[in-house]
Amino acid sequence: MSQGAEDPAIAKLFAVLLAGEYAAFYRLIDESRMAPDVPSGIAIARMAASEIQHFDHLAARLEGTDIDVADAVTRYRSVFDQYHRATTPKTWYEALVKAYVGDGLASDFYSELAGALPESAQAVVAEVMSQTGSSAFAREQVRAAVAADPSLKSPLTLWGRRLLGEAITHAQWVLAAEEEVTDLLFEGATSLQGVAKFFDAVAELHATRMSDLGLG
Amino acid sequence: MSQGAEDPAIAKLFAVLLAGEYAAFYRLIDESRMAPDVPSGIAIARMAASEIQHFDHLAARLEGTDIDVADAVTRYRSVFDQYHRATTPKTWYEALVKAYVGDGLASDFYSELAGALPESAQAVVAEVMSQTGSSAFAREQVRAAVAADPSLKSPLTLWGRRLLGEAITHAQWVLAAEEEVTDLLFEGATSLQGVAKFFDAVAELHATRMSDLGLG
Repeated sequence: MSQGAEDPAIAKLFAVLLAGEYAAFYRLIDESRMAPDVPSGIAIARMAASEIQHFDHLAARLEGTDIDVADAVTRYRSVFDQYHRATTPKTWYEALVKAYVGDGLASDFYSELAGALPESAQAVVAEVMSQTGSSAFAREQVRAAVAADPSLKSPLTLWGRRLLGEAITHAQWVLAAEEEVTDLLFEGATSLQGVAKFFDAVAELHATRMSDLGLG
Repeated sequence: MSQGAEDPAIAKLFAVLLAGEYAAFYRLIDESRMAPDVPSGIAIARMAASEIQHFDHLAARLEGTDIDVADAVTRYRSVFDQYHRATTPKTWYEALVKAYVGDGLASDFYSELAGALPESAQAVVAEVMSQTGSSAFAREQVRAAVAADPSLKSPLTLWGRRLLGEAITHAQWVLAAEEEVTDLLFEGATSLQGVAKFFDAVAELHATRMSDLGLG
């Protein structure tokens, strides 16, 4: 049994995250079709490749547990696919905001979660998170576009709010369906308080991120 | 200037290979749509991610040369895209044979080329090659399919020959267009002899690979 996945609830959490990385890979690939030029195509390809690195880190931790990697994807991907369908970008800038905000939200979720985990599982989360940051290209492109054409600001700000709303809604569905995971993460606090604080923290970080983009 | 790219001909060779990795990434992604199940989807995603790792190794070696990575992709990708258009698989098994044979051909090209390169450039090629092997899943699936349904053997064998033929044709186009690269690789031998030997060696390795698949 691999280090960090000895607790069935942790293994289940890793399984959910792994399905999210899989869904994110195939979503990025779909959205890469909108890339207007080669540098954007390279940047999106690198982001997609880093989702697979995250996936592989998590998959390695499921080895020796009774969770099969492909089964985990099959079981948990639908909520992520629903999120992506609900937030299909219509323009390249929407795709960029989604890439940047999505990468950031994922990283916030990971880091807020980490505090609730035993040390060995924290290491896995830290490993996965250390490889994000490939979405910086998206931030630079959006900032430049908004500076050059201020009429982009208001619709992209609304878009960013919608991304946050959908992310929280879909995360709540996961928590509602997976009691073991919820108990693992929000044990100690009375559950509702813990969950509410968690989403408040995520919303605050999101607001900072929107400012980084020149939005909000 | 990065180690290994001090010679303009080597930098140009790396630029061509890098464009090939970029084209291969986007081709794999297109072909991943045919994946019949999640394990195949995972395997294809891993192959695609490893193309980007190769890409990044080569890109790192172009830093400090006068070749820009995006320009290299723009300039050299068309011959690879033509190869992929000429070899668009119609079935999932054709896609698997192409993935396995294509990965193998790329690795043969790299290893045959390595002998002609100075030591520092050999190290780059070895680094890139050390990360292949993610196509083993394709071999296992094709072997099992051909064993279960021998009527697949003859059409997939023809398909494999066509892949080799198109690969050689397109490689010759690159060599014809890039004299510097050709001189770098086949210097010493009279050029035509060197090129012929090179393709003979590649064809022999291809034959072994077709046997691995239970074909040919």
